Amino acid sequence: MQRVPFEILYRELHRVLIAIGLAEERAALVARLFAENQRDGVHSHGLNRFPRFVSDIQAKRIDIKASPERVGGLGGLEQWDGKMGIGVWNAKVCMGRAIELARGQGIACVGLRNTNHWMRAGAYGLQAAEEGCIGICWTNTIPLMPPWGSAEARIGNNPLAIAVPRKDGPMLLDMAMSQYSNGKLEVLRRQGGELPTAGGYDGEGNLTRSPGAILDSRRPLPIGYWKGSALAVMLDAVAALVSGGRASHQIGREGAECAVSQVFLAINAAALGGQDELNTVANAIVDDLHAAVPILEAEGVRYPGEGMLRTRRESLAAGVLVDEEQFAALRAM
Amino acid sequence: MQRVPFEILYRELHRVLIAIGLAEERAALVARLFAENQRDGVHSHGLNRFPRFVSDIQAKRIDIKASPERVGGLGGLEQWDGKMGIGVWNAKVCMGRAIELARGQGIACVGLRNTNHWMRAGAYGLQAAEEGCIGICWTNTIPLMPPWGSAEARIGNNPLAIAVPRKDGPMLLDMAMSQYSNGKLEVLRRQGGELPTAGGYDGEGNLTRSPGAILDSRRPLPIGYWKGSALAVMLDAVAALVSGGRASHQIGREGAECAVSQVFLAINAAALGGQDELNTVANAIVDDLHAAVPILEAEGVRYPGEGMLRTRRESLAAGVLVDEEQFAALRAM
Repeated sequence: MQRVPFEILYRELHRVLIAIGLAEERAALVARLFAENQRDGVHSHGLNRFPRFVSDIQAKRIDIKASPERVGGLGGLEQWDGKMGIGVWNAKVCMGRAIELARGQGIACVGLRNTNHWMRAGAYGLQAAEEGCIGICWTNTIPLMPPWGSAEARIGNNPLAIAVPRKDGPMLLDMAMSQYSNGKLEVLRRQGGELPTAGGYDGEGNLTRSPGAILDSRRPLPIGYWKGSALAVMLDAVAALVSGGRASHQIGREGAECAVSQVFLAINAAALGGQDELNTVANAIVDDLHAAVPILEAEGVRYPGEGMLRTRRESLAAGVLVDEEQFAALRAM
Repeated sequence: MQRVPFEILYRELHRVLIAIGLAEERAALVARLFAENQRDGVHSHGLNRFPRFVSDIQAKRIDIKASPERVGGLGGLEQWDGKMGIGVWNAKVCMGRAIELARGQGIACVGLRNTNHWMRAGAYGLQAAEEGCIGICWTNTIPLMPPWGSAEARIGNNPLAIAVPRKDGPMLLDMAMSQYSNGKLEVLRRQGGELPTAGGYDGEGNLTRSPGAILDSRRPLPIGYWKGSALAVMLDAVAALVSGGRASHQIGREGAECAVSQVFLAINAAALGGQDELNTVANAIVDDLHAAVPILEAEGVRYPGEGMLRTRRESLAAGVLVDEEQFAALRAM
């Protein structure tokens, strides 16, 4: 691993995106998103995904000119069609629209269909939090995980993000419904590491900590066994219903992950109690967590998102941590 | 265990509620809720909880005359004060309000503060589904679980329900953020059973399947370890922010679980695609799950809520399964 200034990482990404044909505004946003994911330590959805993103564009699996379009709505609930455009662009636009609607409606929900991989769920939760709203969003995926009671991968791991605005740094949950995200398993297999807890089953149906065995068997463990399986199914159902788009089982039929469905919820809680009041409530929750006696003195007890924000500060001070090979590949693009 | 006709169970509950002073409409609703929870096999939040509910009323910890009141709002987002009234009554009213708002607004969210235990989260999700809406609701609780990295119980297990309407029976997720709900642990300790998987830690910090050891150590395992811990924290934060009510750490200071905060979300997805379209999408997801090859032939793969609906049909056909002692105690009340 090496450290690279954020600006240089951003400029390299931006250069490649312009070279493959993205318009300036889109290239700037996409480059910023990839660089920010890497900056925040989300190595499963940062630089490692960029070559695949570029090849999807070159293979015309992503339409770089498409703009998401509102296709229906009632009050604070809208349906948008992503038209197989750039996933991170579509997601930014739709969370932006939910935030805008929530200013007048208190709460808003945008369902987005026919879109592509948004990379990091948390990015759009943070987008809402930066605008003073509670942000909740999730996506469905290609089938990646067996439903409880089966060994066949039929349900998505359907990452979910929940963000709460807070002056000293937002609270952020960003998690897939599998104990470890597919991205994390891929990164760890590459590094040759083992998982800290069982993360799925091997080919013989035994629980294992080997990321490779789990990727090969396609049997990652849902969080909380049957509970995470059921939560993944429900998130998929709500995403398909609200967006009018495809459910995981339909995405699976294409062979590749495309035309996924997403949900963007913004809650303008500050309209009721005011932003200062929100901040006080969030701070009190954070303070109570920090007051907990830690099991390991050195680690402390962290609020959701705290580790990410610490990594962000380190990245901005000392440079963004990148894999040498991945960064060299980017420079050579 | 014995089987009792639903109507007799309902009448016994209703009789006691009238005797302790509930007005007819409230007695009818509360009796129906408790009887339905038992009918649906939710033995952790049915008849077993009724004596505690009655004693809370007799000790005036629950104000049976209080009515929840709207204290603020913007568009589809409203704040209600439960005024320490009957938890199941307040929850029914607030989900009813969210459904009503969602008819015109597409999506609505009611935050309810100063309320009491709503018993079964799923009841209010089902309420929305029966009205053709997607229902999402959750509650915070007294601290019941340590945050990840500590052994001190500082966060709630914050049950969450998500329901999707479907003609042949709604899809329903109803789960606490601990691997096993407190109610389930209590039932199993009473029965002298062991958990099927590790459900928490014993007093020495080792993972255990003993419900008693977990209740004593107050260290239930969050679903997915750090993930369920973080999800519980975020649900608590959103509940406190949206309702303007107490967070778990504040509820804990009272010693008893009262004045909790809840969130009721209704999404009128049928307003966009129509109820038939919703049904088709939900059916396709259910069909795909049913097509999965099960690991255990006899068990099959079920959609969320399927087991509950089967229990409901059995209860209505053959009588509701009740614990003899609990039912005898009810009759003697």
